[in-house]
Formats: sequence, structure tokens, C-alpha cells
Amino acid sequence: MSQILVLNAGSSSLKYRLFRMPGEETLASGLVERVGESDGWARFRHQVAGRQPRVGQTACQDHRQALTMILEELTDPARGCLTSLDELQAVGHRVVHGGEVFHSPTLVDDVALVRMAELVDLAPLHMPPALDCIAACRLLMPGLPQVAHFDTMFHRSMPDHAYLYPVPPHWHSEYGIRRYGFHGSSHEYAVEQAARRLGRPANELRLVTAHLGNGASLTAWDRGRVLDTSMGFTPLEGVMMGTRPGWIDAALVPHLARRLGETAEAVLERLNHECGLFGVSGLSRDLRVIAQARSQGNQRADLAWRMFVFRLLKCLGGYIFALGGAEAVVLTGGIGENAWELRQDLFAATTSLGLELDREANRDTVGGRDGFISTPGSPVKLLVVPAQEELVIARAVRQRLAETLAA
Amino acid sequence: MSQILVLNAGSSSLKYRLFRMPGEETLASGLVERVGESDGWARFRHQVAGRQPRVGQTACQDHRQALTMILEELTDPARGCLTSLDELQAVGHRVVHGGEVFHSPTLVDDVALVRMAELVDLAPLHMPPALDCIAACRLLMPGLPQVAHFDTMFHRSMPDHAYLYPVPPHWHSEYGIRRYGFHGSSHEYAVEQAARRLGRPANELRLVTAHLGNGASLTAWDRGRVLDTSMGFTPLEGVMMGTRPGWIDAALVPHLARRLGETAEAVLERLNHECGLFGVSGLSRDLRVIAQARSQGNQRADLAWRMFVFRLLKCLGGYIFALGGAEAVVLTGGIGENAWELRQDLFAATTSLGLELDREANRDTVGGRDGFISTPGSPVKLLVVPAQEELVIARAVRQRLAETLAA
Repeated sequence: MSQILVLNAGSSSLKYRLFRMPGEETLASGLVERVGESDGWARFRHQVAGRQPRVGQTACQDHRQALTMILEELTDPARGCLTSLDELQAVGHRVVHGGEVFHSPTLVDDVALVRMAELVDLAPLHMPPALDCIAACRLLMPGLPQVAHFDTMFHRSMPDHAYLYPVPPHWHSEYGIRRYGFHGSSHEYAVEQAARRLGRPANELRLVTAHLGNGASLTAWDRGRVLDTSMGFTPLEGVMMGTRPGWIDAALVPHLARRLGETAEAVLERLNHECGLFGVSGLSRDLRVIAQARSQGNQRADLAWRMFVFRLLKCLGGYIFALGGAEAVVLTGGIGENAWELRQDLFAATTSLGLELDREANRDTVGGRDGFISTPGSPVKLLVVPAQEELVIARAVRQRLAETLAA
Repeated sequence: MSQILVLNAGSSSLKYRLFRMPGEETLASGLVERVGESDGWARFRHQVAGRQPRVGQTACQDHRQALTMILEELTDPARGCLTSLDELQAVGHRVVHGGEVFHSPTLVDDVALVRMAELVDLAPLHMPPALDCIAACRLLMPGLPQVAHFDTMFHRSMPDHAYLYPVPPHWHSEYGIRRYGFHGSSHEYAVEQAARRLGRPANELRLVTAHLGNGASLTAWDRGRVLDTSMGFTPLEGVMMGTRPGWIDAALVPHLARRLGETAEAVLERLNHECGLFGVSGLSRDLRVIAQARSQGNQRADLAWRMFVFRLLKCLGGYIFALGGAEAVVLTGGIGENAWELRQDLFAATTSLGLELDREANRDTVGGRDGFISTPGSPVKLLVVPAQEELVIARAVRQRLAETLAA
């Protein structure tokens, strides 16, 4: 009764991690990807702690089928790690958007489910699969607490001059137009780990946390609150990403619509899926592929790389100025944790600005290692923290259940 | 034969300044505004050096009428300062957009005029009045050299990772989608003055120049070239402005179009005219009005002010990081030259970052004064430079004519 399952539903994937609490050991983890592809075949990867991972293909039409497969895997008498689903204490769900409704982890009941469904318009790609998973869990495991954890929650402490856009106020009050911010659980974990590593409470620290994965966002943490975050109303805004451009001139949307003879919605689709590293390089949204290609002289890959570094550097500098200085910069996510060449380029000319990279430590801190990559004397510390978003969610679920019992 | 008239046509205004060269004295200056308003009445202001300014209202339907009025004023036997238009050596025209066609000041012939007309789509509000003025000058003063000076020229030295957006490359090659940048003559003058004040050649300096007026843009100058500039494909992008929001989530455009039941083009109109200081405050696009209102406790004015400072600070910090440090920050334009409280807020927490404001010098440097507003020990100098965009154009015109004669 102490196991917590965390589910993270993407637009075409479902990731999971099973924790034994309060020890926080991972009992199993894995994912199903290519969910809902037109050929009907999904890929899966299951890993029970201490055993060989199991990978393969399977027929899988939707997130509910993917979830069923995961639950069967976890309770399989031969391969699983649970004797029955009754061993679960709760399921935690990563939900991308909490709008202006959900400010804390929420026990899902019918009312909460309806409120979440009303937010689909704000994240049309991510909300439906998450809601499908929650609904399926309620059906398959009736009575088991389902807790929704929202990516946007962490950013609720932003001041009004950061979360509002310079637009007429009724666009906010009537249409919900504001900066929401995403990757909340990753930024939260990065802040927590930085505080631990620096040996100071988070509410004394000014930090920039950079979650760099296929999606990427930076957050400025100002002594106990979020000062700003780079993703905005949607995850399109901010630094350059795998398939998204980040900050552009908004006038491009109507202009391109006219030139391409398409609707603004169609242009938005292109901005979300055909730009960023992928669009510039024409090769891949994966920075590893870009790095490889540029080392072989591919000029478009080289341009994509330089744009990525340049835009990241500008956001980082902007946040450090907005904070009036910072104690540390924290890098996390697949790129933040592993792309040492990128980090080397990013901090190549920042020594005079107080951010001094230790090139050797930087090269060594990859593959899930954490630690400082700045020189001992660097006024601003540079820290790599492997992301543990599911752990943040599992802890929040436990906390939420404890509060319920106490109430 | 040594006088140069510089014309600066806005969407509903026409500014002019008459120089005697090479001494660079201003013989007369002024403007006609509210050109083409529905009531048919424009306001004018004419100032001949050493005399009282003449202000008033007049019937004026279009830019050609406004130009005719200005030429009559300049040659009026009683009030003017030219005995005839034959005294003019040339007319210099500020043209907002040179696209990817015009990289230097250009003697206008029929071919150039057609090429400029092809760029109307890139700046539909600003190009037609400028082209009307050029055409009218050719008609009214046949044979007189007309030189077009483009706002975008100065930014032509940007590297590809700055002028390209992270979008598919054929959007650039086929549709001209790129960062152009504007306010070129103002940034050019700011760089030149900073070099003079610092006693070092511009190609050794790293600078951030901030042109802050009703439109606003920042430029990062990197030892002889532009590294980046905040306005982009259009003047909508960048820092917050009088009626424009600057950087926003581009996804707002289709989202608002849907919610408001309007086209994306109509939303773009709103973004250009109903946002920024005006939209947030609900009062005015004029920072002086905002400052006054917030001092009286107006909360929306206070929010507009804080957003303006916050977004400016982020852009400034981003550019300083992109440059790897800077020798100076230069402030120009109506706000940059006069809004000492804004500058005080902007540099309130930058001392530890190397930008130390001298509060007294800051308060004193207003009303057309130039000079340093940083402490003598500040590692990064802060400099106020009153804008002289027309002078930059007049010099360029002279240079262009000299080249023509030499050829």
C-alpha cells in the first residue's frame, strides 16, 4: 500500500514510473511511444529494477490501451513487480495545464475532471491524453486516489509584470491570455537540488534553471518565488527548441498565412512542428544528431546549433539581469544533462560576467551525473542536475494524501 | 547649393530638417502631423533657426500636400530661410524598409522607386507615405538628387544566427522572413557618439544602444558590426513600446482570432495599435502620462511602467551576455533622453553586474543634454545621447553625392 505510480502522458506517448515510498526507490519505469500512429504500432520499453529492460512493438491505438498494457506489465506474475494493483497507494498524473483554476496537486473527482476538460483549449495536444489516462485509471482501479499534478502550478508565484503580457487587461480576464509557464516539476526539482548543493535555503537564492529537452524552458527563481519563465501562454514561446522556434515576431503568423495561403491555425501547426532545430537543420529535432552533422561539416546543422546557443544565452543573460544577479545556473533535461559541447559554447564568453566554466568538470558531467561544472572560484555556480520530474510528482501525491487524511 | 533637406515620413506625419553642410547647422525644422485624418485638419510646427516657432492648423489631405506646405514655408519671402528651392543640394528621405535589396543610401531613379514599391508589403503603414514624398519631390524639384536612406541598412552586418529565425530556410529565401531591424540611423548615431565619448574606435567597442521613443528597439553592437537588434521582421517585435507589446507568444494570434471572431490580420492591427503602454494603462502611449498617473496611485499605469522596465532590463541583459560583456550602454530617443526615473528603475539593481548609475548625473541629464550617467568607477559606462537621426541621413546624402561625383 505504499507504492505510487506516476503517469506522464504526452501527445503520442505514455511514460510511467513506479515508486516505493517513502524511500523513493524506483521499482519500475518505462514508456509506450508512437501511441495512436496511423499504422497502429507502438513501441514500448519496460524496465523493472534490477532486471533487463524489455523492449518491443505492439498494437496500440490509444492512451487507454497503452495504460492497460503498462498495468498488465506491472502485475505480470513472471515479469512484473506488483502482486496486484491493490498494492498501489495512488496514481499521480502529470497534467500540462492547470489554467488559472488549479494551483496545487488535486485529488481528481468528477468536478475536477470537468474543470480540467474545460482547459483542453489551452493545450489541445497534451490535455486529452492526460484526461484519457485519468478516466481510464478511475475505471480500471475504482476507489484508488488519482492525483493531478500541473506543470503550471510552480509558476503561480510570478509577479503581475511578468505573467501578464503588454496587452489590454480584458484579454486576460475574459480570454485567459497570460504567461502560464510549463515544465514546473522539473524547475521545482532543479531549485530544490540547487538549494541542497549550495547548502542554503531556496528562499535565499536567486537562480536560473534551464530545462533543456525536446521542449525547453528557462525559469528565473527569486528567493522563494518564480520571477519569470520563458514559455508563455503556450509552450511555443521562449528559447529555441526541437521543433519550435521560441520567440519570433508575432507578425509572422498573419504574414505567413497570407503568403502560404493557409489559415493562422495552420501556420501555428507549422511553428509547433516544423521549426526549431529540426526546421533549421532539415535533419532532426535531436541535438545529438545536429552535433554529429555539424562535426561533419553540415552547414545547416551548424547554423541550427549556433542559433540554439545564441538564443539560450540571451534568455539566460536577461534573467540574470532581471534577478539583479544570481547564485547559480542549473541545467537539467536531456540536453542540459548531457550536451557538454553545448554547455561549453554557452559559457564560452561568460567568465567576465561571473560565470566561469570548468571545462574538465563540464566534459565529465554527463550520463546522469550531477554536480558543479563551474570553477571553484566562479562567482555564479553552474550546476547540472539530472531531471526527476516523476519523483517531484510522487512526493506531491504523498503530501496531498497526507493532507487529506489530516483534514 | 550646400543645403540638404531631410524628410521623415511617418504613417500620419511628415518631419523635416534643413541642414547647411558641411557645417551641419540646422537652418529650419518642423513637422506636419495628423496628415490624412478624417476631419482633414493637420497640425504643423515650423521653426527657423533663431526665430519663434510657428504653430497652427491647416487643411491637409495627404503627404504630398504636407510636403508642398513645407517647401512653401521654407521659401516664403517673409518667414522662410531659402530664397528658392535651387539652393538645395539634395533631399534625403528616411525610408523604413530596404528589404534585402537596399544595403546603402541610394540615389532614387525610376528603377529604385519600383524596387522600393515592391517592399510596401513589408511595411504597409510606413512605405507608402515615404514613396509619396519621394515621388512628389521628383515632380516638384525635377533634377534635384533624391537620396533614400533605409532604417534597415545599419543592421545588414548581423550574423546569420541573429538575423534568421529558427524556421525552415525557404521561408527566408522565398518569403523574405528574417530579422530586418529598424531605427538604424538612431543606433548608428548612438554608436558613433559613444565611440567619440569613450575615445576609442567603434570597431573596438561592445555596446548596447537603446532607442526608446514611441517605438523602441535595442541593438547589440559588437566591435564593428551589429550582433543583434530587438525589432524583427516588423517593428512589432522586441521590447514593450507605446502601443505595441513587443515579444509575446505567437500562438496568441490564432488564439485571439478565434476568441474575438476576427481575422489574424485584425488581431495584428490590435497588437500594433492597442497594446503596450497604452493598452496596459488604458491611458496613453506616452510614458510621461504613465509616470504622472502612477505617481497619483493609478495601478494600471504602475503595472505598465513595471512591465516596461522589466522587459527592457531582460533585453539589455540578454544583449550584454550575447556580447560577452560591454563597454557601455547608450540611451537615446525621447524616453531614453528624458525619462530619468525610468533609467533609475532600470539600473536600480545592476550595480553588482557592473552597471552603476550615478543618481545625480542621471537626474540632471535630461532635456537634450548628453553625457555619462554612470559613476566614474562603473565598469560599464551608461551614456545618454540625444538622437540626431536626420543628421545621420544628411551626412549619408553628402557622402553619396560625393561618391557619385567621384565615379
